[in-house]
Amino acid sequence: MEMDLNAQVKKACFLQRLKDFPSNLKDGVTKRIKHVQKFGKDDPRRIIHSIKVGVSLTLVSMLYYVRPLYNSFGVSGMWAIVTVVVVSEFTVGGTLSKGLNRAFATLIAGALGVGAVHLARLCGHKAEPIVLGILVFSLGSAVTFSRFFPRIKQRYDYGALIFILTFSMVAVSGYRTDEILVIAYQRLSTILIGGTICILVSIFVFPVWAGEDLHKLVANNIIKLANSLEGFEGEYFPSSEKTSKETNSSVREYKGILTSETTEDTLANLARWEPGHGRFRLSHPWTKYFKIAGLVRQCAIHFEVLNACVLSDAKAPQDFISKILEPCSIMSREAGEALKAIAKSIKTMSRYHVCVNTHIKNSKNAIENLRLALKLSFPETDKDLLEIIPGVTMASTLIYIVNYVEKISEAVEELSGTVKPVLEGDNAEECNNSPHVVIAIHDEQPPTVNENNVNLGAEKTTVVVV
Amino acid sequence: MEMDLNAQVKKACFLQRLKDFPSNLKDGVTKRIKHVQKFGKDDPRRIIHSIKVGVSLTLVSMLYYVRPLYNSFGVSGMWAIVTVVVVSEFTVGGTLSKGLNRAFATLIAGALGVGAVHLARLCGHKAEPIVLGILVFSLGSAVTFSRFFPRIKQRYDYGALIFILTFSMVAVSGYRTDEILVIAYQRLSTILIGGTICILVSIFVFPVWAGEDLHKLVANNIIKLANSLEGFEGEYFPSSEKTSKETNSSVREYKGILTSETTEDTLANLARWEPGHGRFRLSHPWTKYFKIAGLVRQCAIHFEVLNACVLSDAKAPQDFISKILEPCSIMSREAGEALKAIAKSIKTMSRYHVCVNTHIKNSKNAIENLRLALKLSFPETDKDLLEIIPGVTMASTLIYIVNYVEKISEAVEELSGTVKPVLEGDNAEECNNSPHVVIAIHDEQPPTVNENNVNLGAEKTTVVVV
Repeated sequence: MEMDLNAQVKKACFLQRLKDFPSNLKDGVTKRIKHVQKFGKDDPRRIIHSIKVGVSLTLVSMLYYVRPLYNSFGVSGMWAIVTVVVVSEFTVGGTLSKGLNRAFATLIAGALGVGAVHLARLCGHKAEPIVLGILVFSLGSAVTFSRFFPRIKQRYDYGALIFILTFSMVAVSGYRTDEILVIAYQRLSTILIGGTICILVSIFVFPVWAGEDLHKLVANNIIKLANSLEGFEGEYFPSSEKTSKETNSSVREYKGILTSETTEDTLANLARWEPGHGRFRLSHPWTKYFKIAGLVRQCAIHFEVLNACVLSDAKAPQDFISKILEPCSIMSREAGEALKAIAKSIKTMSRYHVCVNTHIKNSKNAIENLRLALKLSFPETDKDLLEIIPGVTMASTLIYIVNYVEKISEAVEELSGTVKPVLEGDNAEECNNSPHVVIAIHDEQPPTVNENNVNLGAEKTTVVVV
Repeated sequence: MEMDLNAQVKKACFLQRLKDFPSNLKDGVTKRIKHVQKFGKDDPRRIIHSIKVGVSLTLVSMLYYVRPLYNSFGVSGMWAIVTVVVVSEFTVGGTLSKGLNRAFATLIAGALGVGAVHLARLCGHKAEPIVLGILVFSLGSAVTFSRFFPRIKQRYDYGALIFILTFSMVAVSGYRTDEILVIAYQRLSTILIGGTICILVSIFVFPVWAGEDLHKLVANNIIKLANSLEGFEGEYFPSSEKTSKETNSSVREYKGILTSETTEDTLANLARWEPGHGRFRLSHPWTKYFKIAGLVRQCAIHFEVLNACVLSDAKAPQDFISKILEPCSIMSREAGEALKAIAKSIKTMSRYHVCVNTHIKNSKNAIENLRLALKLSFPETDKDLLEIIPGVTMASTLIYIVNYVEKISEAVEELSGTVKPVLEGDNAEECNNSPHVVIAIHDEQPPTVNENNVNLGAEKTTVVVV
């Protein structure tokens, strides 16, 4: 009886599922389509790139469709198709790097391959495959080994791969055909046609420049630091103007920076292949971005500690917090403003705002105020010292962060290269000073004592030509 | 007269350089050769891999050299060469991933390509290139777009590329030839031959397993943490047994961990393609290594703060340091020992030593002792509080690190999967207790209060079957 009931329930379930199937399928498909649409909208350049690849493929197919072209190149036309598929990369730098690697590697390996075939023929018909085999084995192994060297891996990995490929193909097929020069010529010319189509489409149809992406990435990472700092202020000092909800999401924005190193490396490598474009010269110092990005990441590491302070249950007592509240929140606000100004000057490639230095100076003054506040908040009982540890950790982390902001500002100045001294007060109206600017200066150190040998005075403004 | 002198000096310089050229050249070449030799010796698997590629290339060349084979495959044999060059990766996982992607993508795209040619032929001779063009354009664009999706990019990027390649080649060349099925068959069979040779050589001739590399990398990263902790002890507490010189190099060993995420990701992805090998089953939980590696990296981030404490000129006064010296050095030593024991149990895949828990327990007790010491080292003047900040930061960072060591130990236990309770005292003789083991337990919290809900008692031992 129970079995019957079970069977009936199962049958009902099955029928229900069968009935729901069309609507479930429709829901699933709609959801999937929406996901794909959102993915495309997030970065419409992805859709454009896909269409560009389609266009290049159609163009290169003409080698087959148009009779006179097919008569000249024959089935070798397929190498042009292979080249288009393989060389079409998202960024101009990627396409150029692959295209040039492929073209030069094919040229050199093709010439060497023809030479190898002639050498092998001199040794007689029986020895020919042995000589060819030894040559292919030794060159293949040697070039494969060279691909492990970081320098070659970084810039010429694809070239080395194509070198082995072309040399082996020309040398081995040379054993069976006498038209080896024709094959080598056709392969080279079709690869050049495919590569040229790709590079032209990549540069002239909605180009995606790796250099510009790197530039924006570095600036955005600095903004992420600023947002996290702002978020932290709202989280750690609930008395702040911003509510906890507003800042909750931004406080962990820095997390993305900790894992962006690979992207930066790739973009900087590709950017070096790109010609001058937009606001960037051909010899733009892309490697200098490494330094800035490295400092930003080092700074983000200290944010991890700050985040641990936010998440920790063990917070310092409220009366202690209230004593260090002002200098700490000024430190974080001014450092955040400085970061925003640095990011803005990178992004817009405009003048290096004098207010960067002003904000850094204000946050450094706040450090002195913090020291004073700590002197005054002398613990009354022995238990207090233990309780204030989280607060002290937070404060000392903020000091580290301010120092890093200064270092980042210096690295950006260095990138700019041209530092023009401008009269005091010039540009000062651009600085959006917050109402809490510290004007009291305690025990100001002479410029030479300053850890980073930077003159923090407002009498300097610099020009960023990044 | 001066001009003459200048010219003479220049001439002398030039002659000297010309004279030195042979010896300079010899020095340069010797240096380069030594560098290459050292690079090969650092990881002899690189040399073996290069030879393996050479062997595969020689094997596949037989398709040309041996007359009966050449008669069956003809010039299509070159696709086998292309496959060998492109598919031969350093690790078994890499080779399998590329080989399988290439084989299945060729199969599916080849079938679709043949279908597309038949469809186009139905539309009449004039419409044929238009229909083919539209099909190539739309499939090429769609698959290119799909390559942006992280899931596809991670595992099937190469397959998608080969799909576009094969489909375009078959569809476009189908316009000019009636032997399209023969072409498709020859291409597929030669790719299968090339792929099979690569995979067999990769698996059976000195295989390099991505899974084993990942396993070792994670264990080595844990050892690096332990070494850095040991190095830190020698640097920060010069009164320690170890001299500063001995530990100087090891204190920054953790730095490598901060940038190893990409390597871990790649290895874990490739490991999933590998069959069971050595001590690893087919369904080994490779993704669980992410969690351990992530915790190790989080822990390494706190080492960055510890390193800042070592580098900083502002050290806490010696009398304060001497007060917290014992608990701090016990914390770092015990945490280091725990890390070493964890790494050992991963590396040897042996029993999860009971001493891991003992060491963690000891370091947790030391935290309590530290709290006591901080209570006793109550600052006497208001200036003292400021001075001890660096010491307090160091101590609180050590507390974070101890907590992370506990989390890492838990994650490794989770990886082991099989947790067997063993009688108290069992295996205890394996534990190499340091002479400083803390036996006093202050305010021990009940197990449920413990942040990570782990029973730290020595009555448990677990078995790692990683």
